[in-house]
Amino acid sequence: MNDPRPFSRGRALVTGAYGFVGRHVARRLAADGYHVTGLGHGNWVGEDPVSWGIASWHSADVDGETLAEHGGTPDLIAHCAGSGSVAYSLERPREDFRRTVDATLAVLDFVRMHRPDARVVLPSSAAVYGLAETLPIAVDAPLRPLSPYGVHKKMAEDLARSYATHFGVRVAIVRLFSVYGPGLRKQLLWDACRKIAAGPAGFGGDGEETRDWLHVEDAATLLAAAAQAASTECPVVNGGIGEAVTVRAVVDRLADRLGGGPVSFTGTIRPGDPRHFLADVDGSLALGWRPMRALDDGLDAYAAWYREQAA
Amino acid sequence: MNDPRPFSRGRALVTGAYGFVGRHVARRLAADGYHVTGLGHGNWVGEDPVSWGIASWHSADVDGETLAEHGGTPDLIAHCAGSGSVAYSLERPREDFRRTVDATLAVLDFVRMHRPDARVVLPSSAAVYGLAETLPIAVDAPLRPLSPYGVHKKMAEDLARSYATHFGVRVAIVRLFSVYGPGLRKQLLWDACRKIAAGPAGFGGDGEETRDWLHVEDAATLLAAAAQAASTECPVVNGGIGEAVTVRAVVDRLADRLGGGPVSFTGTIRPGDPRHFLADVDGSLALGWRPMRALDDGLDAYAAWYREQAA
Repeated sequence: MNDPRPFSRGRALVTGAYGFVGRHVARRLAADGYHVTGLGHGNWVGEDPVSWGIASWHSADVDGETLAEHGGTPDLIAHCAGSGSVAYSLERPREDFRRTVDATLAVLDFVRMHRPDARVVLPSSAAVYGLAETLPIAVDAPLRPLSPYGVHKKMAEDLARSYATHFGVRVAIVRLFSVYGPGLRKQLLWDACRKIAAGPAGFGGDGEETRDWLHVEDAATLLAAAAQAASTECPVVNGGIGEAVTVRAVVDRLADRLGGGPVSFTGTIRPGDPRHFLADVDGSLALGWRPMRALDDGLDAYAAWYREQAA
Repeated sequence: MNDPRPFSRGRALVTGAYGFVGRHVARRLAADGYHVTGLGHGNWVGEDPVSWGIASWHSADVDGETLAEHGGTPDLIAHCAGSGSVAYSLERPREDFRRTVDATLAVLDFVRMHRPDARVVLPSSAAVYGLAETLPIAVDAPLRPLSPYGVHKKMAEDLARSYATHFGVRVAIVRLFSVYGPGLRKQLLWDACRKIAAGPAGFGGDGEETRDWLHVEDAATLLAAAAQAASTECPVVNGGIGEAVTVRAVVDRLADRLGGGPVSFTGTIRPGDPRHFLADVDGSLALGWRPMRALDDGLDAYAAWYREQAA
């Protein structure tokens, strides 16, 4: 399997390849021996798509027309395009739907029509679970998303399963938990670093909320592994490392590394915001995948990257 | 409530008002005192939309633009537009999705943006249940649709619930079982009449399959009643009469009325085709709704209509 020849594994299409997860998936697939085409939005100013393993980049919406024009003849599709913000989904639900659900449908229908043997991997989100009744969260737990974002992710999953069942499309779903890593300019770690750098840092919640933190490079290897397991059974795995770490512990470590603080929490718990996330990762481990990045090292690297890019 | 003045109830928009269910809903709402606008596709050659209660008809797709242009200021929206064929959903899944899911999203977002106080009723389908484990089928039974058509109907429901929860849209869902009545030129009754008229008539299955038959006029009154109960809780009711009648009994009665036959069944059971449907109609009855059309009378009327239109 470790054939050193370039592109020995065939062709891969990564949608949303400019995005945080997408670019890491592109680099992973390129390293695995795929010729990677990227499709999506993003302005690579000062960056080279090739450095992310993207041999061919097309800046466009992900829809039936652009897939037909730029999608080529992929053996594997990592559909990383899509909305990534609960807040955005509440502000512009229809646009969020378009980015997440319509784009997924376009990819699935492209495969049905033109590349029926291609493997598809779909990054989904732990947001599809909503408030979990039991931890860790198993992939067969009830899906009760709490936001339009989560509803739309669930609908994208429903489409993937429908295309697997009714049209023989080989697909796998990875429900990503809290993906982080250098380059992520949104969500908790980013906000935390900005606040800490500015002085005494106050945060909502009580800090005892837990998340299952997954380094983006581990997320990329998991998505690549899941893609190989894609089938008409539409397997679903969780993307976490199976460890719950508090928000307070994460923020404290960043403050320690950045030399800021002190850090405080309001104690106000936001209703509708799940307090605890913890992934049951049996299915992910069964793929042969193992997370390689320890959280502490990952946070240190994030803090170092933050300091560097802020300078 | 029985104010005789025209349009005393306000304005109603019926999408898909040319369709079999849609036109009956339009007529029902007009009779209830609404000024009814119709939007959708359909060529009323030789027919008068006004005779169906449609004061204003617009022939167009149901999307954000056409709703903004023609939707007006409805107090009630019956979103009867949408795909209605399992076979079509297998042939053209993306188009089926567009007709069912995208159109529903357009209506919900139109309400969110422009008519937040309007009531919305969404006809769904018993197809969302798939193979039922217990009969009668309760509205909280698991949803395991067996076709893209059913998946898309379920997704439309998910969107309705999401807009109710997250954006305060008042909506109600009616899962229609086997709706029939004069004017229906597809599905079992239509096929049966055509075969019977042609001579000895053979049918798939063994005839012992059961369906919960609902006359289209009763479906219309149920949809109108459910619309009045629309809320941010997104109530769901079943559209049946709570009686299971075999396909054989239905076909035999049509043959008796049309003077054709004999009728035979192949005995071959189609895998994936649910053998039994029976609606739990507690929720529908709790709305104050009652079905008024007995099946035998309805079948006689259907046979008479078939004979007339064939002549």
